[in-house]
Amino acid sequence: MTLLILPLPGNEEAAQALAERNAAEVGALTVRRFPDGETYVRLETEVRDRDVALVSSLHRPDDKLLPLAFVAETARDLGSRSIGLVAPYLAYLRQDRRFQEGEGVTSRYFARLISGSVDWLVTIDPHLHRLPSLGAVYAIPTRVLHAAPHVSAWIREQVPQALLVGPDAESAQWVEAVAHGANLPFVVLEKVRRGDRDVAVSVPEVDRWRERTPVLVDDIISTGRTMIETVGHLQRAGLRPPVCIGVHAVFADRAYEDLLAAGAAAVITCNTIPHPSNRIDLTPLLAEGVAAFTPDTTGAVAT
Amino acid sequence: MTLLILPLPGNEEAAQALAERNAAEVGALTVRRFPDGETYVRLETEVRDRDVALVSSLHRPDDKLLPLAFVAETARDLGSRSIGLVAPYLAYLRQDRRFQEGEGVTSRYFARLISGSVDWLVTIDPHLHRLPSLGAVYAIPTRVLHAAPHVSAWIREQVPQALLVGPDAESAQWVEAVAHGANLPFVVLEKVRRGDRDVAVSVPEVDRWRERTPVLVDDIISTGRTMIETVGHLQRAGLRPPVCIGVHAVFADRAYEDLLAAGAAAVITCNTIPHPSNRIDLTPLLAEGVAAFTPDTTGAVAT
Repeated sequence: MTLLILPLPGNEEAAQALAERNAAEVGALTVRRFPDGETYVRLETEVRDRDVALVSSLHRPDDKLLPLAFVAETARDLGSRSIGLVAPYLAYLRQDRRFQEGEGVTSRYFARLISGSVDWLVTIDPHLHRLPSLGAVYAIPTRVLHAAPHVSAWIREQVPQALLVGPDAESAQWVEAVAHGANLPFVVLEKVRRGDRDVAVSVPEVDRWRERTPVLVDDIISTGRTMIETVGHLQRAGLRPPVCIGVHAVFADRAYEDLLAAGAAAVITCNTIPHPSNRIDLTPLLAEGVAAFTPDTTGAVAT
Repeated sequence: MTLLILPLPGNEEAAQALAERNAAEVGALTVRRFPDGETYVRLETEVRDRDVALVSSLHRPDDKLLPLAFVAETARDLGSRSIGLVAPYLAYLRQDRRFQEGEGVTSRYFARLISGSVDWLVTIDPHLHRLPSLGAVYAIPTRVLHAAPHVSAWIREQVPQALLVGPDAESAQWVEAVAHGANLPFVVLEKVRRGDRDVAVSVPEVDRWRERTPVLVDDIISTGRTMIETVGHLQRAGLRPPVCIGVHAVFADRAYEDLLAAGAAAVITCNTIPHPSNRIDLTPLLAEGVAAFTPDTTGAVAT
């Protein structure tokens, strides 16, 4: 029996693309709200004895957890053989320790809830700050895929004379990986302290890069503050308007509009969270992750 | 050490009233949202080695589950001796079986999540349709309290010449209990079939009740449809405008306004869900339930 892919609401397109790549079937389900705010779920495709992959990107996760847990429990109740979760964007990785007394370590608590609902997890570039790996908080097998090669390929094809730019030392490793994949130069901005409260940001060897298009890359664009500031630094240094790339289009509040207004030449994201800025298709990564967990139920992965 | 009562946002007043009755302490906590929609929690009172009672009424439960689960996990992490939940209104009791193929039995799934978070549960008049008891779905000890005696007392004190009215045979048992407690007469409306599609609703012995004030009582007022229809039946029968009483002020959409507009003399609820219609204080019930689970940490229950 082929793998059954079940999209939670809003993930239908991702599920369809994934199914095409993995020769899987897309099933149907209903998730709706009663007038009193309770969630109703119904699976409309037979799941008995089948391997099931739920697809649910987890931006704004609080609204998504109960429907996801309910659908997973329903599939289990109805006799699914296994139930996995494809979460192109995974949430709750910020609060991975107790920074102040009394705080909840929500990375662990959220991971425990997900681990209690599904048997495996596939995701892309989780925002692991201090955690060595997802296994530090998830009790189920996880598979993490990396967008960098796809981001590199997109830049190589779409941005002539690109220069990768890292906003600070922390970003160097990630920016270097993308630059290396695209065979492009990169710079990391430097903070120059001119006084107690006066910190300037400068572009090293700025004159070398005047004919290039700066490309800013980050894993998540959430409030977009760092990226907006960096756009300003590049502008003041007299460089061209930069292309801003984020893997995950979280975009809190008006971050997307603000980033464009700040002077970005373009704002580009991968399709891990549906958004008008999606340009880089990561379906092949998800397909690879899913195939690894369901080797006997997925067809040959198209390459 | 006295019991520590921790109110989730919106339950501060209920927690304070409960603490006063049980000689317990009210602790403080922060629950807020990051710009990307993730929840942050922090306990501001020391919980180590203490018995903790969280207070969270669970109307519109989907927004409340994660904060509740996170606060419970945080308290556990920080060394609480036990963690209970006082949910004056408990959610997800409607979908207690699979009515149609493929449906999720959310009563069970929600109960499993709550049972995984806390050690005991106190609630008032859960809307058990077909379940014999909460124990059928909750894996933790539960204590169910009943509002009927308090509703009876309120009617006796506030409504001269009251007549309890049940909208249909299903409500008879509950209405009879309230009427009996208040030592008042009650009638149950009768459906009279006059043709294939023509069903009239009549008030038995209607002429006996013209000088009385009808009182409609139900456990939940959600959409309010049944109660609104019943107000119409009484009106057409020439009875006085009724007082409408619900234990739980769920009030989906504009149910409260609609019920007043339909001709109710007053709409009255118990304080299990904060609402302007709250008139009947059930703190004594909650206090009794909590004391039963924490006999060595609560003070003498004031009576």
